[in-house]
Amino acid sequence: MKLVIGNKNYSSWSLRPWLLLRHAGIDFEEIPLRLFTKDFGAEIAQYSPAGKVPALVDGDVTVWDSLSISEYVAERFPQKQLWPADVAARAIARSVCAEMHSGFGNLRNQMPMNATAVLPGLGWNVAVQQDVDRIAAIWTDLRARFGAKGPFLFGEFTIADAFYAPVVSRFATYGVHLPEVAKEYADFMLALPAMQEWVAGAREERDFVPADEPYRTQPDRADAIIVTG
Amino acid sequence: MKLVIGNKNYSSWSLRPWLLLRHAGIDFEEIPLRLFTKDFGAEIAQYSPAGKVPALVDGDVTVWDSLSISEYVAERFPQKQLWPADVAARAIARSVCAEMHSGFGNLRNQMPMNATAVLPGLGWNVAVQQDVDRIAAIWTDLRARFGAKGPFLFGEFTIADAFYAPVVSRFATYGVHLPEVAKEYADFMLALPAMQEWVAGAREERDFVPADEPYRTQPDRADAIIVTG
Repeated sequence: MKLVIGNKNYSSWSLRPWLLLRHAGIDFEEIPLRLFTKDFGAEIAQYSPAGKVPALVDGDVTVWDSLSISEYVAERFPQKQLWPADVAARAIARSVCAEMHSGFGNLRNQMPMNATAVLPGLGWNVAVQQDVDRIAAIWTDLRARFGAKGPFLFGEFTIADAFYAPVVSRFATYGVHLPEVAKEYADFMLALPAMQEWVAGAREERDFVPADEPYRTQPDRADAIIVTG
Repeated sequence: MKLVIGNKNYSSWSLRPWLLLRHAGIDFEEIPLRLFTKDFGAEIAQYSPAGKVPALVDGDVTVWDSLSISEYVAERFPQKQLWPADVAARAIARSVCAEMHSGFGNLRNQMPMNATAVLPGLGWNVAVQQDVDRIAAIWTDLRARFGAKGPFLFGEFTIADAFYAPVVSRFATYGVHLPEVAKEYADFMLALPAMQEWVAGAREERDFVPADEPYRTQPDRADAIIVTG
């Protein structure tokens, strides 16, 4: 099974299935593509007709998009129980994943994932705060319902944790204030070995993509490669 | 089972699960809410913590978002075969649904669903055309692969048809030119009884929502109710 991903520093959509597979202990080959490079379009076209990362190739099967990949993996590895077993809990898990998948545009646009950066206060506005409030409410509600079963959103690890992992990263980067229960969950997720491994991978990357960091004109690293397409 | 939806004229997200249930012949009670009215927020809060339509309430189970509702319904009524039975086809079906669910922002923004309007040429720009081209490519590819099995995207009716139904409506409203195979599919879907029933319902609505029709200051209907929140 091959998972095609973008830059670990920037690609929030890639982090979701990567974290899902890694934390669940499912073997896969990682195919990293460099976003915004001249070759990206030709490279991703080999794997996905949608022209975007992430994509999963499993023999004859090609799946693209983080949510469809997650559903595919959940079906392919039922023993991993990647959705909650209970019908009502599974319905909620799918709902919060779908809500993240199509929503929170203000947060997405104003606080793009930048896994290695520390930019407290940047990007904040009232509309972003509404997104933050809704996410904190989701986490707090789920922790109240399922917290007795374990430290993840539904107790045990599920696709929902993978789906909110990029938001955890954004909250850390932009120093977003969270209510207590939401902060505990975010801190727990940041310390997860799979999350740490992703961030360590992001630190090894040298690409500086101005399109992903409109608030900066100069990279931090002296050996950075400036990628403008 | 109760399906909470918004205005049939405007709510593209509501059309998806409504068409899915109706065409599949699954009984449900329809709970129509009027978007942008003063009461909408309080009304939807009774059904969905996300504050958006659509939402599905099935006894103790609450599901919100068009995609999670569709997955829930597919699991609840396996005999309806709402996803393709073949693993690779199902992976593609989920991928094209997810692609629609999170993408095509230019088309969405420039050509909002307006099921009863005729506004050829409005909203078009180069970025919208890229979205149109990708959708036409998806339909053409699927018709080539699965056309021998029936007139829907995967031969038989699946969630993918429900997911692209709002786009079919948009293409009709805005007079979007489509290549031949894509046009055939769009015409077929427009004529589907469930789609016709939805549009007939939209014609009975009197709400004129300026926020959903930024290109118009006056409603067509003399008896229109102007809803500004």
